[in-house]
Amino acid sequence: MTDRHIPILPLTAEAFAPFGDVIETGVAPSFQFNAGMADRFHDLARTEALGEGRIGISIARARPYALPLELTLMERHPLGSQAFVPLTPDPFLVIVASEEAGAPGPPRAFLTAPGQGVNYLRNIWHGALTPLNRASSFLIVDRIGAGVNLDEHIWPDPWIIGG
Amino acid sequence: MTDRHIPILPLTAEAFAPFGDVIETGVAPSFQFNAGMADRFHDLARTEALGEGRIGISIARARPYALPLELTLMERHPLGSQAFVPLTPDPFLVIVASEEAGAPGPPRAFLTAPGQGVNYLRNIWHGALTPLNRASSFLIVDRIGAGVNLDEHIWPDPWIIGG
Repeated sequence: MTDRHIPILPLTAEAFAPFGDVIETGVAPSFQFNAGMADRFHDLARTEALGEGRIGISIARARPYALPLELTLMERHPLGSQAFVPLTPDPFLVIVASEEAGAPGPPRAFLTAPGQGVNYLRNIWHGALTPLNRASSFLIVDRIGAGVNLDEHIWPDPWIIGG
Repeated sequence: MTDRHIPILPLTAEAFAPFGDVIETGVAPSFQFNAGMADRFHDLARTEALGEGRIGISIARARPYALPLELTLMERHPLGSQAFVPLTPDPFLVIVASEEAGAPGPPRAFLTAPGQGVNYLRNIWHGALTPLNRASSFLIVDRIGAGVNLDEHIWPDPWIIGG
């Protein structure tokens, strides 16, 4: 029997790179603008929108989850990337999985630090938007348009995240 | 001689509509997702990217300005929209102008409420990113790509914003 317990690791750009981008300010800005009054940390996410769609902007207000979290559902978007950037400093949980034979393999779970957002690449399996402490707002930057842009996978037995 | 003093008005979606979108949560969400655990306020900005470009994600860290502000420079982006969403609750100043004979007409100035971001439509004249109280971080969602995407206009005599 497989161990269904998944540890929660700190989110880093290196560990997350196969799944997407960590949206955060680095040590050095890419360049300055507005006559030196502002620093720009440039092009932090591999946004993508296929077919009749464009990258748009929405806001999510998400209710919190408790740990340990029983995970039975993951989803992916075959037509575009999807970014979530928190509008508060509260951490949230980021759950992703590699593809294995047309379905998500064992999930991996990361906890954000204050100021970190994520961009899921197109077709990357991921869990729900999962704040932990309290209801939180997020800017969503994802594909908006026509077409079927959702795959879901349901496991009969839950994974236990942070158990 | 023209009066060069420009009042600062509260930012509202109605007043700002000719220039762009106010990115904020309304009274009612557009729909729910994640099995009812999250509300989505959907498609809040008229994003646009012409030519060889895409809508991407960056972060700005902007130093504050003092009032009254002497405005001599505005800019616009002929190839795409540009959104700024604050990552803190601090207000910032939004300065825009209508086009008059190939140049910006008299500026209009708005102050955001906590939680409000803005999306400037393509080709809309606007001022610099202008926090007032302290250095602030903003998510930028704008066109990234090849091509000349900046027009600037300089006035010999400054406008006095909030004087």
